[in-house]
Amino acid sequence: MTDAPGERGQDGEAGGLSAPRTPRGYLDQNEGHECVAGQGEASGLVKERLWIYDTTLRDGQQTQGVQFSTSDKQQIALALDALGVDYIEGGWPGANPTDSDFFANAPETRARLSAFGMTKRAGRSAENDDVLAAVLDAGTGTVCLVGKAHEFHVTTALGVTLEENLGSIRASVAHVVGKGREAILDAEHFFDGYKANPRYALDCLKAALEAGARWVVLCDTNGGTLPAEVGRIVAEVIAAGVPGDRLGIHTHDDTGTAVAATLAAVDAGARQVQGTLNGLGERCGNANLTALIPTFLLKEPYASRFETGISREALAGMVRISRMLDDILNRVPRRASAYVGASAFAHKAGLHASAILKDPATYEHIDPALVGNVRVIPMSNQAGQSNLRARLAAAGIEVPAGDPRLGRILEVIKAREDQGYAYDSAQGSFELVARRELGLMPSFFEVKRYRVTVERRRVGAGTMTLSEAVVVVIIDGQRVLSVSESLDENGTERGPVNALSKALAKDLGRWQSVIDDMRLVDFKVRITQGGTEAVTRVIIDSEDGQGRRWSTVGVSPNIVDASFEALLDAINWKLVRDARRGEGS
Amino acid sequence: MTDAPGERGQDGEAGGLSAPRTPRGYLDQNEGHECVAGQGEASGLVKERLWIYDTTLRDGQQTQGVQFSTSDKQQIALALDALGVDYIEGGWPGANPTDSDFFANAPETRARLSAFGMTKRAGRSAENDDVLAAVLDAGTGTVCLVGKAHEFHVTTALGVTLEENLGSIRASVAHVVGKGREAILDAEHFFDGYKANPRYALDCLKAALEAGARWVVLCDTNGGTLPAEVGRIVAEVIAAGVPGDRLGIHTHDDTGTAVAATLAAVDAGARQVQGTLNGLGERCGNANLTALIPTFLLKEPYASRFETGISREALAGMVRISRMLDDILNRVPRRASAYVGASAFAHKAGLHASAILKDPATYEHIDPALVGNVRVIPMSNQAGQSNLRARLAAAGIEVPAGDPRLGRILEVIKAREDQGYAYDSAQGSFELVARRELGLMPSFFEVKRYRVTVERRRVGAGTMTLSEAVVVVIIDGQRVLSVSESLDENGTERGPVNALSKALAKDLGRWQSVIDDMRLVDFKVRITQGGTEAVTRVIIDSEDGQGRRWSTVGVSPNIVDASFEALLDAINWKLVRDARRGEGS
Repeated sequence: MTDAPGERGQDGEAGGLSAPRTPRGYLDQNEGHECVAGQGEASGLVKERLWIYDTTLRDGQQTQGVQFSTSDKQQIALALDALGVDYIEGGWPGANPTDSDFFANAPETRARLSAFGMTKRAGRSAENDDVLAAVLDAGTGTVCLVGKAHEFHVTTALGVTLEENLGSIRASVAHVVGKGREAILDAEHFFDGYKANPRYALDCLKAALEAGARWVVLCDTNGGTLPAEVGRIVAEVIAAGVPGDRLGIHTHDDTGTAVAATLAAVDAGARQVQGTLNGLGERCGNANLTALIPTFLLKEPYASRFETGISREALAGMVRISRMLDDILNRVPRRASAYVGASAFAHKAGLHASAILKDPATYEHIDPALVGNVRVIPMSNQAGQSNLRARLAAAGIEVPAGDPRLGRILEVIKAREDQGYAYDSAQGSFELVARRELGLMPSFFEVKRYRVTVERRRVGAGTMTLSEAVVVVIIDGQRVLSVSESLDENGTERGPVNALSKALAKDLGRWQSVIDDMRLVDFKVRITQGGTEAVTRVIIDSEDGQGRRWSTVGVSPNIVDASFEALLDAINWKLVRDARRGEGS
Repeated sequence: MTDAPGERGQDGEAGGLSAPRTPRGYLDQNEGHECVAGQGEASGLVKERLWIYDTTLRDGQQTQGVQFSTSDKQQIALALDALGVDYIEGGWPGANPTDSDFFANAPETRARLSAFGMTKRAGRSAENDDVLAAVLDAGTGTVCLVGKAHEFHVTTALGVTLEENLGSIRASVAHVVGKGREAILDAEHFFDGYKANPRYALDCLKAALEAGARWVVLCDTNGGTLPAEVGRIVAEVIAAGVPGDRLGIHTHDDTGTAVAATLAAVDAGARQVQGTLNGLGERCGNANLTALIPTFLLKEPYASRFETGISREALAGMVRISRMLDDILNRVPRRASAYVGASAFAHKAGLHASAILKDPATYEHIDPALVGNVRVIPMSNQAGQSNLRARLAAAGIEVPAGDPRLGRILEVIKAREDQGYAYDSAQGSFELVARRELGLMPSFFEVKRYRVTVERRRVGAGTMTLSEAVVVVIIDGQRVLSVSESLDENGTERGPVNALSKALAKDLGRWQSVIDDMRLVDFKVRITQGGTEAVTRVIIDSEDGQGRRWSTVGVSPNIVDASFEALLDAINWKLVRDARRGEGS
């Protein structure tokens, strides 16, 4: 049902990069912080560098229900590079076959590619730890090792002494540095560890720094530390001698505050930020870079104080990269996501919507276009007439203010929404409802009946399922029967809705040429409430040769019937838009 | 397809309340803060009162795609009351028919019911403002009015002078107080207004307080203010003379920091917290009470410092109330939600899972049972054998460590996941896969073929859709044909999957009695990737008379076929669990 094209090539077309360039912001191991003479507000203002470390492909892979293929990882890595993150943590080579594969065929990026692993295990040298060797064998410029910084975990989970653990950290980092790589320590359970034994937690960080680590990252592994405490502890760590520009922060969203905790850490002096796109990650996810990056670029004090590797142009691609990731993972994009959600700039309240139409700044904290998003004034039972007129105008239908038909349209919309229809998203069907009330909807054809059959039977040693649809249509006084199967040109079964849509669109007489370039590109099913009954709501997205995309809705307890209704609206929308220009042929 | 029973009565059964009791924490208008001699950590420690103001039914109604019926609102109000919030803002009577209806038939609650409205319009008295009158006519004990506190909005959006606006605030609040109600001012755009003209913003608050308002609430209406700034401004407002125990905070999630901004405000001295369940609300939503409430009760410094109206027992119902709301709105529950998400305590990484099995405190920041959640060790391609054995043990299947069949099961699971199956959620199907590999799966019956027909035709002036399913089964060597329609006992059409499930379960010979108490309670459809093709994944939830609930999955390009596969697994799971106890009859 979904044969949406996408930018899913395996040859880097999503990123559009060609030859590799010098790694972004390369820093000598022993140098202090890097300043970028900036486009600061005041002349001569020097901005500090803020480093973005993306772990979508490693920590994000630990999201329940998420599985990246190697080609998925390549596509995402290229998109992350085009966005401008500084580090891309690609996975744990050796521990996960997909990850080893990814690193073996890693794309060329300006961003530093990082391989994740853990500090050497007790009782062997760093050189002789095979798990660590596999991480180094991936050949990345950067290696990030997780190490214990919480005394309880050292003695209980690892079963070694505190001193032995420091030795493992030192030896592992020194080994990585000795191989000419940039070393990063992820200090696991750092905040809980610091609260239990601050001296020891700091010793773990210093062991890594002394052995040559470029960064030590404070990880709130359980996700239970609140922002105020994160800020306080980061400040204390810096006061205890760990330079802020060697310090990273890695939070999780178990209390719903990962983004804010990251901001608090930056406020306190940390200069590397770890997170994932769309807040993917274990349990409640990592700090959401899709929310952090726009804040760093657009909000004070960050916009004036810091420089990242992300340009304003790249920021405008934020919605696109967010949707791309959801598309790869077949996850429904979260409408309420900060900055990039489909509803992030949707102004439903009548009050807000009228004000917005006059001046968007009144209810929007940023211009949606800065992140590639759009303003939406949705249809709903709270919509006033000003919303409605604006929505109709967008569909090319002008209705004067105060026209009594506006009130009737709102009533029809509301009544149908009570039955389960949703017009917020199905603007194609909304337009048809309005046209019918306004007498602007011709009757192109009439469906007398249809029958859809799905049959599964044994064929040889296996089974085969086939769908067939018969549709009887009256067009220009003629009774036309059409039948279609659901097999596509490769002989692959595509299902009953596919068969029905083909039969419906097979022979529409003089309108045939108008609909020939229509394609079904998405199909969403939701069980919802229609009055007192559970009904199925189907929303169909269609596209045509002119690149237009429109959504239509159907509701019924019967899923095929609901699909039929949405298909009918899709065809009628196309006809009313294009058949006006001529009689068809 | 979903005929899930639920606690959806209209007579308050969800809340279980009977006679009304004294409103919780009633406070005389002129009194200072209320202290509750607490169960503080130290003897003699007095806890401060933190007030929870829920606006799920008002601001939450402004979520794109959300429509509450009056009975929805009643059910949610009773659940909120049982939870223990202090205020329930029920809507805007007069502006929205559903809201007027709700207030006219409001349930009895311990929580204070609040009607929302706006300050009087210019050019008329408070007594003569019909919009305000409608709000008061709802008869609630508390009235919350939104008023402008941002000079730009006053002069541009309202088109009145700054002094006139102060007069409107004063007169409206005085009018509410004069009617014997508790008055609250929602200071709109407060933070932007304070940054533009702090003196004026404060004057708006003082006008309300002097006129007798119990609370003034600082609203971050655009959602663009970050937590550090919210905290700073709240502290300044209190330093300027507004008592913290008269001060509320109302944030939005447009930068992904609403929860943290609320915490920052409480840290700075605010004592009323406004938010919604599940973070519903305009655009990116309001501050999420589903995350805030557990933090206030379980995390320091809040647990020791503050008392709310919410008990530990009520907290354990947090997952339930969150799911109830999603169920009413037919929204898919967000798996990654803090505290209550299905994935909030799902430990996918092999490393984490082994440690958790030894000691949950190692990777969990709280005990999931405190909020009514559960620990999950999901199946995935990262799962090690320890995860798998734990999962099998939970299904009553013991397999010794190191058994080679464990590796084969993991391979089969992985291969099927590549085809589009998802075993994280469909644990019933997972169990059947394992049983087949372990030779522990009897063959109860065989389906030779099925045929499902959906037909829509004109009947009189309307149309009628009917589905019919024919299933041919071999059971105990006998060939049995069953046919079923999709009409239920009321003659309502229920769809092709319903017809198929009835036909499948109609005549299973000696197994019939075992499956007679099975019911299909949920049906989820997702278009996903199976290899290179788009396929439909159907997950079915079934329940039986013993209160067990199990999920099964089917995958096919054909939605009916995918449903068939999931149905077959559902029946087989029930048979393998229960038919062992006897031969059926």
